[in-house]
Amino acid sequence: MGRVLRIGRVELKVLDLEKSVDYYTNIIGLEETGRMGDSVYLKAWDEFDHHSVILTKSNSPGLAHMAFKVETMDDLAYYEKKVEEFGCTTTRISNNTRLAEGEAVHFILPTGHHCELYHEIGFLGTAVGFRNPHPWPLGWKGIAPHRLDHILLTGNDLKTVTRFFVEALNFGQSEKVVTEGEEELLGSFLFTTNKAHDIAFVKGPDAKLHHAAFHVDSVHDVFKAADLLSMYNVPFDVTPTRHGISRGETIYFFDPSGNRNEAFANGYMSYADMPTITWDAAKIGTGIFYHARELSESFMKALT
Amino acid sequence: MGRVLRIGRVELKVLDLEKSVDYYTNIIGLEETGRMGDSVYLKAWDEFDHHSVILTKSNSPGLAHMAFKVETMDDLAYYEKKVEEFGCTTTRISNNTRLAEGEAVHFILPTGHHCELYHEIGFLGTAVGFRNPHPWPLGWKGIAPHRLDHILLTGNDLKTVTRFFVEALNFGQSEKVVTEGEEELLGSFLFTTNKAHDIAFVKGPDAKLHHAAFHVDSVHDVFKAADLLSMYNVPFDVTPTRHGISRGETIYFFDPSGNRNEAFANGYMSYADMPTITWDAAKIGTGIFYHARELSESFMKALT
Amino acid sequence: MGRVLRIGRVELKVLDLEKSVDYYTNIIGLEETGRMGDSVYLKAWDEFDHHSVILTKSNSPGLAHMAFKVETMDDLAYYEKKVEEFGCTTTRISNNTRLAEGEAVHFILPTGHHCELYHEIGFLGTAVGFRNPHPWPLGWKGIAPHRLDHILLTGNDLKTVTRFFVEALNFGQSEKVVTEGEEELLGSFLFTTNKAHDIAFVKGPDAKLHHAAFHVDSVHDVFKAADLLSMYNVPFDVTPTRHGISRGETIYFFDPSGNRNEAFANGYMSYADMPTITWDAAKIGTGIFYHARELSESFMKALT
Amino acid sequence: MGRVLRIGRVELKVLDLEKSVDYYTNIIGLEETGRMGDSVYLKAWDEFDHHSVILTKSNSPGLAHMAFKVETMDDLAYYEKKVEEFGCTTTRISNNTRLAEGEAVHFILPTGHHCELYHEIGFLGTAVGFRNPHPWPLGWKGIAPHRLDHILLTGNDLKTVTRFFVEALNFGQSEKVVTEGEEELLGSFLFTTNKAHDIAFVKGPDAKLHHAAFHVDSVHDVFKAADLLSMYNVPFDVTPTRHGISRGETIYFFDPSGNRNEAFANGYMSYADMPTITWDAAKIGTGIFYHARELSESFMKALT
Repeated sequence: MGRVLRIGRVELKVLDLEKSVDYYTNIIGLEETGRMGDSVYLKAWDEFDHHSVILTKSNSPGLAHMAFKVETMDDLAYYEKKVEEFGCTTTRISNNTRLAEGEAVHFILPTGHHCELYHEIGFLGTAVGFRNPHPWPLGWKGIAPHRLDHILLTGNDLKTVTRFFVEALNFGQSEKVVTEGEEELLGSFLFTTNKAHDIAFVKGPDAKLHHAAFHVDSVHDVFKAADLLSMYNVPFDVTPTRHGISRGETIYFFDPSGNRNEAFANGYMSYADMPTITWDAAKIGTGIFYHARELSESFMKALT
Repeated sequence: MGRVLRIGRVELKVLDLEKSVDYYTNIIGLEETGRMGDSVYLKAWDEFDHHSVILTKSNSPGLAHMAFKVETMDDLAYYEKKVEEFGCTTTRISNNTRLAEGEAVHFILPTGHHCELYHEIGFLGTAVGFRNPHPWPLGWKGIAPHRLDHILLTGNDLKTVTRFFVEALNFGQSEKVVTEGEEELLGSFLFTTNKAHDIAFVKGPDAKLHHAAFHVDSVHDVFKAADLLSMYNVPFDVTPTRHGISRGETIYFFDPSGNRNEAFANGYMSYADMPTITWDAAKIGTGIFYHARELSESFMKALT
Repeated sequence: MGRVLRIGRVELKVLDLEKSVDYYTNIIGLEETGRMGDSVYLKAWDEFDHHSVILTKSNSPGLAHMAFKVETMDDLAYYEKKVEEFGCTTTRISNNTRLAEGEAVHFILPTGHHCELYHEIGFLGTAVGFRNPHPWPLGWKGIAPHRLDHILLTGNDLKTVTRFFVEALNFGQSEKVVTEGEEELLGSFLFTTNKAHDIAFVKGPDAKLHHAAFHVDSVHDVFKAADLLSMYNVPFDVTPTRHGISRGETIYFFDPSGNRNEAFANGYMSYADMPTITWDAAKIGTGIFYHARELSESFMKALT
Repeated sequence: MGRVLRIGRVELKVLDLEKSVDYYTNIIGLEETGRMGDSVYLKAWDEFDHHSVILTKSNSPGLAHMAFKVETMDDLAYYEKKVEEFGCTTTRISNNTRLAEGEAVHFILPTGHHCELYHEIGFLGTAVGFRNPHPWPLGWKGIAPHRLDHILLTGNDLKTVTRFFVEALNFGQSEKVVTEGEEELLGSFLFTTNKAHDIAFVKGPDAKLHHAAFHVDSVHDVFKAADLLSMYNVPFDVTPTRHGISRGETIYFFDPSGNRNEAFANGYMSYADMPTITWDAAKIGTGIFYHARELSESFMKALT
């Protein structure tokens, strides 16, 4: 069976739909690809599937669901079975429940988050196309990330949710944060691609979103993104810095509903045979913010 | 079965072993990890396996062999069978034929290149380690790439070698260069990771090496590498530019035996479900050198 | 008396005025600030004076004139006298001969180029303003350089023109290229600001333009500029590289009339007390193109 | 008369001389060029004068003196007279009072800081030399800045000290921070080169040092510097960000005695004819830290 391909979409709950669309299109620089009901569908310029972000009007912010794309319909059935075997109840979501989507397998993570697997989704192509393409599209607005990169969630039982991703979905664990003697897992970083992480968890309340991250190319582009956020008066959580975990260059900021976003560059390549990198709890400050070397209260407390 | 993990090693034939070791350690910035017979073993600072480059004294330059690492011994047996089914004869190379290596499966590609699959190899770890690591090591010499990135070979029948990698080794094809009507394949770019390519072929004589590439982080590091090469008076083939194919930033230059090296940054992420990007033969100049928009004679002719 | 402030404007002769305006506004990213007769006036977003580039319709490309801004009207009179004392005939050009310009002092350089000094010119301000400014303007098109940076001309007698700039205009010489024993001067780089050069000369026919350069911030922006030029199919002379002379990062390309442009980043700071850097003629290749280490024919031959 | 060339040296008071030398040579990456008495003399690789930093053992940290280099001995006499005319008492410091220095003119600024003017100083040359130089030296340690860039001091009467630099030393004022109606000056940024500032003052106690800044090339090098500081466990004041004032990219950190240092990149070019940029007091947060948009307590309070 194939590996899970990637985190294909996140559905974010937003308070004011039009204000959110304005933010995600003009400041983040995603493209609106459709609307259905109370939801607006968006994709980044370098993504070819119909959408990677769904904004859905709601009374509170947060993550409605996230979904991982698999390579074939056989893979969908295979991973559905693995999820069931792990002990999570799955249900099939019929196609076109959301716009341009095929059938999906739904389940709830041990951390309480709604998660789906899917294979079928409409194809739109990238902004540069697949025939003699230019490397990037002219005139794109905003931060203009390549793609949705990863998501960080909070939960209580990180050992179980890690075991779920490793055993049921065949992810690797690139990094972990542990208390002395590894008695408790405070952070767990998981990958299915060759990125440093595709999904991660930190210790905290169940069913909460810490952030959704978008990929940009370089520290130069992280700075450009940070400048843009100041021009648009978007609130920052974290100004430009490097992560110890993942080595990536980063900024954090908030969408109009208070959902945290990240613009993330670089990060090492992971491989299935790499040893898991271990961070001692005492070093978590350096692990998260390599320069400041300590956690900020806002970074720990603001969850949606 | 797991996907093939990566191009794990290249064995380069070199004319003067000590001169070559000096070049690959002080200018490229690899670390010597061992010697056996007429061979010197090297790894990049961010690689954890025992070696990724073997320099072997020879009367002519070129590629002695390349090898792909698989995730388990079961994968080794699985891909061995697939290679046989494709019609390539395989032989087992016993462990410790070369330094720190386990058993390998050898075969000859349809383009005449010696290729191996393996799982077992000695573990040395990266220069920054796996416990509360710093993002990069202090005091490293030379270009200091993260890792061996990919290899480009020449061959006559690119359709068959592409089919081999796709069918026998489960690679994807990220890009191709075609004549009108796609009658002939002039270039084929293949991936097993999420990189734009892990191995590639361009039309040319069988069994020849075009270049071995090392990965650096950014266009800034490509320029730093180019500056270093001028300080050490290393001959360039191609000064800093961007590829249309892969979008990567690049320089090409020659080791003391005339084997072409590349320092390569960025490049897009590939996925198993991405459509293959097609370049028309008339656009190959732009595909290879996005700025100059034409091929140079040296780039086409110099092969080892 | 104050130092000469900067190269304030170049008037370029162009064959097709509208095509040239389209190129300099949409691809270079200058702003059109006015028209008069057969001329169009342009400035970069970070310049505050009315214009730095004048495009004038002509039957042949090249430099109509360049002009240096001085700090006060007293400085204008002072340098006028110095130019006369050097032996160049000066004439006063009355104000509003060209758009938004005050009176200027005209003379012909020992290399045959038309040169002016001026103090008065209309003030338009930068695109970010002078009250709580953002660091750069949103939505700017093209390469979007900060400013006109420098100009390179050819001439026969570089010793005399160097002496002119040093003695009459109080410039420093940052670098020179010399034949053995310094018998002949093949290149001369001159500064009045703290840049590596504000005007430079290389050995060649009198009264010719080699290139006009625009300033961008970094090697990243040089690459962005190079990508843009390929998207717009602008012909390159030199793809991204570093200069030995000035240390700057650079690309060269041609406007629609064949006038060479440069996008130039970095370069060291010069000071009036720095020793002149000397390049031996045998090293001129490295001095000009630090990576390729040899001159190209097009770079030497294409003049307007 | 010539303009004042640059801030040529700062003498910093340090508590532990050897620890400070270790920090300024191995982490900042300056070169020790001599010792005399309780002082160690240092220069950056791209500076040609004998020293730009003097570390002098003392019971408390802070600035012992700073000095500006002028172009000729005539300039020294000229500016000495101007300083006297402004109303500051000058005294001549005889040559060789400190190592490799000629005669200097000493006076006390309206803000209580010890300041000198000088022309003569020993010449050592840069690390790359003046004949066919490479663009940067191989094997340099630490942050490896090009040069001492500027200094920021605190004082009570910023209007008078600004008037001093403008009237007596012929500086320009690039930026200022003002209360409503410009009644009070909270910040004043002054230049004699084409940099955004060579010396600056913010409202605070007299005779105190806020920071001494070193110049690096790019945001990439600011990040490299920040990484190095974490590797060496140097305390940060401010992690990577952009300034609104000057547009520069920056980090702030502390030497072993608590003197604040900055690694500073880019910043716009200033000219004698540029209008002074004005920041309203309400926008000072954005002016200082363009991303965070508010001042931090440590940045305001930590002075030496």
